[in-house]
Amino acid sequence: MSNSKSADLFESSDSSRSGKPLRFAQYVTFDEPITLAAGDVLPSVTVCYETYGQLSPQRDNAVLICHALTGDSHVASHDDEDDPGWWDILIGPGKPVDTDKYFVICPNVLGGCRGTTGPNSIHPETGKPFGSDFPVVQIEDIVDVQRRLVDHLGIDQLHGVIGGSLGGFMALTWGVRLPSRVRGVVAMATSPRLTSQGLAFDVVGRNAITSDPEYQGGQFYSNGQGPLVGLAIARMLGHITYLSREAMTSRFDVNRMDARNIKTRFETKFAVGSYLAYQGDRFGDRFDANSYVTLSTAMDLFDLGGTAEELREAFAVTKARWLVMSFSTDWLFLPFQSREIVNALIANNRPVTYCNVISKCGHDAFLLADDLESYGEMTRAFLDNIDEGSDHAVANPVPERPTSIFQNRLEYDTLLEMIPPKASVLDLGCGGGEFLGRLQDQGHHHVVGLELDERAILACIQRGLDVVQVDLNEGLAAFSDGQFDVVVLSQTLQAIRNVERVIREMLRVGKHAIVSFPNAAYAPLRERLAEHGLSPQTDSAQGYHWFNTPSVRTFSIRDFEDFCRMQGIRIERQIAIDTRAGTAVTEHPNMQADIAIMMLSR
Amino acid sequence: MSNSKSADLFESSDSSRSGKPLRFAQYVTFDEPITLAAGDVLPSVTVCYETYGQLSPQRDNAVLICHALTGDSHVASHDDEDDPGWWDILIGPGKPVDTDKYFVICPNVLGGCRGTTGPNSIHPETGKPFGSDFPVVQIEDIVDVQRRLVDHLGIDQLHGVIGGSLGGFMALTWGVRLPSRVRGVVAMATSPRLTSQGLAFDVVGRNAITSDPEYQGGQFYSNGQGPLVGLAIARMLGHITYLSREAMTSRFDVNRMDARNIKTRFETKFAVGSYLAYQGDRFGDRFDANSYVTLSTAMDLFDLGGTAEELREAFAVTKARWLVMSFSTDWLFLPFQSREIVNALIANNRPVTYCNVISKCGHDAFLLADDLESYGEMTRAFLDNIDEGSDHAVANPVPERPTSIFQNRLEYDTLLEMIPPKASVLDLGCGGGEFLGRLQDQGHHHVVGLELDERAILACIQRGLDVVQVDLNEGLAAFSDGQFDVVVLSQTLQAIRNVERVIREMLRVGKHAIVSFPNAAYAPLRERLAEHGLSPQTDSAQGYHWFNTPSVRTFSIRDFEDFCRMQGIRIERQIAIDTRAGTAVTEHPNMQADIAIMMLSR
Repeated sequence: MSNSKSADLFESSDSSRSGKPLRFAQYVTFDEPITLAAGDVLPSVTVCYETYGQLSPQRDNAVLICHALTGDSHVASHDDEDDPGWWDILIGPGKPVDTDKYFVICPNVLGGCRGTTGPNSIHPETGKPFGSDFPVVQIEDIVDVQRRLVDHLGIDQLHGVIGGSLGGFMALTWGVRLPSRVRGVVAMATSPRLTSQGLAFDVVGRNAITSDPEYQGGQFYSNGQGPLVGLAIARMLGHITYLSREAMTSRFDVNRMDARNIKTRFETKFAVGSYLAYQGDRFGDRFDANSYVTLSTAMDLFDLGGTAEELREAFAVTKARWLVMSFSTDWLFLPFQSREIVNALIANNRPVTYCNVISKCGHDAFLLADDLESYGEMTRAFLDNIDEGSDHAVANPVPERPTSIFQNRLEYDTLLEMIPPKASVLDLGCGGGEFLGRLQDQGHHHVVGLELDERAILACIQRGLDVVQVDLNEGLAAFSDGQFDVVVLSQTLQAIRNVERVIREMLRVGKHAIVSFPNAAYAPLRERLAEHGLSPQTDSAQGYHWFNTPSVRTFSIRDFEDFCRMQGIRIERQIAIDTRAGTAVTEHPNMQADIAIMMLSR
Repeated sequence: MSNSKSADLFESSDSSRSGKPLRFAQYVTFDEPITLAAGDVLPSVTVCYETYGQLSPQRDNAVLICHALTGDSHVASHDDEDDPGWWDILIGPGKPVDTDKYFVICPNVLGGCRGTTGPNSIHPETGKPFGSDFPVVQIEDIVDVQRRLVDHLGIDQLHGVIGGSLGGFMALTWGVRLPSRVRGVVAMATSPRLTSQGLAFDVVGRNAITSDPEYQGGQFYSNGQGPLVGLAIARMLGHITYLSREAMTSRFDVNRMDARNIKTRFETKFAVGSYLAYQGDRFGDRFDANSYVTLSTAMDLFDLGGTAEELREAFAVTKARWLVMSFSTDWLFLPFQSREIVNALIANNRPVTYCNVISKCGHDAFLLADDLESYGEMTRAFLDNIDEGSDHAVANPVPERPTSIFQNRLEYDTLLEMIPPKASVLDLGCGGGEFLGRLQDQGHHHVVGLELDERAILACIQRGLDVVQVDLNEGLAAFSDGQFDVVVLSQTLQAIRNVERVIREMLRVGKHAIVSFPNAAYAPLRERLAEHGLSPQTDSAQGYHWFNTPSVRTFSIRDFEDFCRMQGIRIERQIAIDTRAGTAVTEHPNMQADIAIMMLSR
């Protein structure tokens, strides 16, 4: 993973500490045989870890950080003299994962090479390094060792587990295999399993390592420097997949022939070539080839399921609240894969928030400062609200946010009044969550919002709401039939192209649907067309014109009634409003009302 | 490049002939020192090539095929006993490149290893293979040798040059460096230069080869088998980039753990892993490592420019007609890069047709049968119409196609009548080219269409028209100020979200703009709203409703007039039509006309 914000083009956020000792590292050894998922037994396991902040007297503020493929326990620096940590931007006093509030734990993973038992550890029986005799490790084995560490620290339940990429696999595994041990899971830039394309890159990287004659079947520790060429090739390849194409272009394409003059065994043609050579060469100084093979194999073997059904089953047991974030230009762990996780949680009616952060940075985005305002602040708000509504709840003032689409008090109150008590509610296009927040305050227990806008999503999380980023035109496929009592679509239908599909989906997912929309047959609009020959523009008061209005559907109350008749939809209740007069309209609503609210069912 | 249509998952279209002799290969040796672009001199060059069909007495029907990185001269089979050619689906009697019409020539490239002089050829002075002493070759050197072959065959001007991928670089080079030697260029799945991401993959591949101890500095021919491991790694990596992620998923993800049991030195975990191992192992049987390094370096050095301005200059000299095709899932040579080529040709007012073929196959799509109906038929139509309007023109019956958006004869005739004689015309949303075809028949020399639909684009090419695939919502940035006399937008404005931008762009690119649109204030529509409270739906006669109409803008003649006044646009002429009555409307057009046609200027 590499840091595009660094002053030096060649610096990389997690490769800056090669060989240095970890001053604050702590160690614990579990001196008993540990049976791995595949059946192999490790005689004992030592875990290297670091901690930050203070464990509360209730022992309920612990946050576990899971590192990615080549990370280590040094997630943040401990003091001014300490070396930089690989996630310093996220973790520390006052930072998104605030070590003034939370007790942060970061262990090096099983199979790694930075203090925790791995292939370069000494086998207690032979007195020599395991080498390629180190057993096949899976993500669940890594998590099992992390769980032992958490037990050792006397923590029954983690406040949160956070991980990105391979660390995301661990976070997912905590959520589904140790459901009572964690209250909140933050999974970034991850997936239920690698794509075949992702697998393919890993396979080529391992082939480069194990085909290097210096690999010596994995027993290279006593003889030579190890497969530095193969490891460098694997690292170069990895680097390409961590960056977006756009990031590579902006970084290397301006002066593409401008190769850095470095001492290396590799080709240094082109700016990008000398960068890769530099990264490849340096990697061998700090990482063990057998660990690379072990952990990349663990990554490849991780598989929560390949179908929606398998994933639904995999996530059935989780009890945690979830925050899932993908990054728009990540092509190694793709946004649609995060959506698969989210859909499985939705199918199980679990609380989940999802955002696909718009980023230029590719897979590495979760390690970089560029998008910290999004993913960092979402993480902060999520951690602070995991216990919203539970005994663990922390007082959390709802921030003032831009007002939502609810411009009209009467419409807003009417909508609220229409929702039956204790109903579960899905709000399509929920904005910053004002309406849902009101419902939550009124004691509606299961309220979920769908929203496109990243800032509005953050505002929802800050209110302690669950919100999923969805383009309504794509439908509500993730939700099951009758999953909510009420599905609300307020002042949005006129901006949707695929009206039939959205209404059909609302009535599938909700027992009732409530829509509100502007009425194009309101008397002043009729007059506008009939008398003046001008388009019946419903939002001209908001400063829109026919050529730039977000309203792409022009329709009246009667048009909508006709539509319902054609589609066999029952209108249970209909409330028409004249917002200018501030009154409900009972006579000639299609003439006298500018807004209609309808409660529908099949 | 690999063939996903093959019965055997593991077969690959261009790797099936390892070591076999080329029965129909011909050879010519240019026995004179040849100076390369970088200054090195080759003492002589032998070219291996194959030909198909008959050269016409006028010597004007020759089509040159340029192969990609690992191809050869055997582009198609010559008879039933012959081995398959790598582009058999495209080339042969009655096929898109019809060898009953065209004399097809396909040479192996300079620096290759299938008969033409390359690193494994014997250096005439030393009596040993060149090895890594083979000079750096650039695409212009490869094309220079192809030009010598064309000279040798007595051909002054090629009817066409066709190439994909690296072969596309050659086709581009013919167009811009030998402008008088070629009438038509077909460039598929190519770009003005690699992205830095593409460069990076090549660099890693070469590093794998040259770091393999068996590479021996490139002089491996007399000692051992050569760098088979490094070459295999490079090939595996290449394979990943040739396939789309989607193609890999559908091919390997269903049974992802289902590895083929093959004998190989490489890892065979996962379906995709054993596939890559198989491809990697086989590649060494048929390809030379030094050729791989030579040709991939030539690919990386190719650079027509990194900015629109540089590309405009690069393409300024071309005289050919162009067909540029990209493939939607190609992530090695991306569609936007083809658009850069197209934009440079447009900026030079050169005739060009462009289509981004919707494909699942990735970069390899141009070698596969899946999308042949698109790219193959476009190639056929283009080749048959290169000379449309010139002395070389072949009689070409315009096929019957689905009718265009011009539903109304009167509107159609009015539009035609509005265009001044001999005008250059750009038609936005040109459909199958009916209107442009009429203009071309009337002697308007420079007519160009923009269209989104792939089938409509093919219909245009079959009419001998130039058509560029553009989403009008993205604007007309490729076109320069005042490039056309008239820009036409017929019955499309109501379906466009970004009205202001499209009109502004029309008036920038055209000296005049002509728009036609339906009038929402037509009397029956006024009545519909005023009397019945129903939306003034302009296309209800076409079976659309308010909830599914493609018309996302509802506006009247007066609305449009107001818009023009606000924007400072002059309405030069205005013709309103009552299509029911079949007459032009002069009194109260905003009431009496259902369609308006306006000629605008700044």
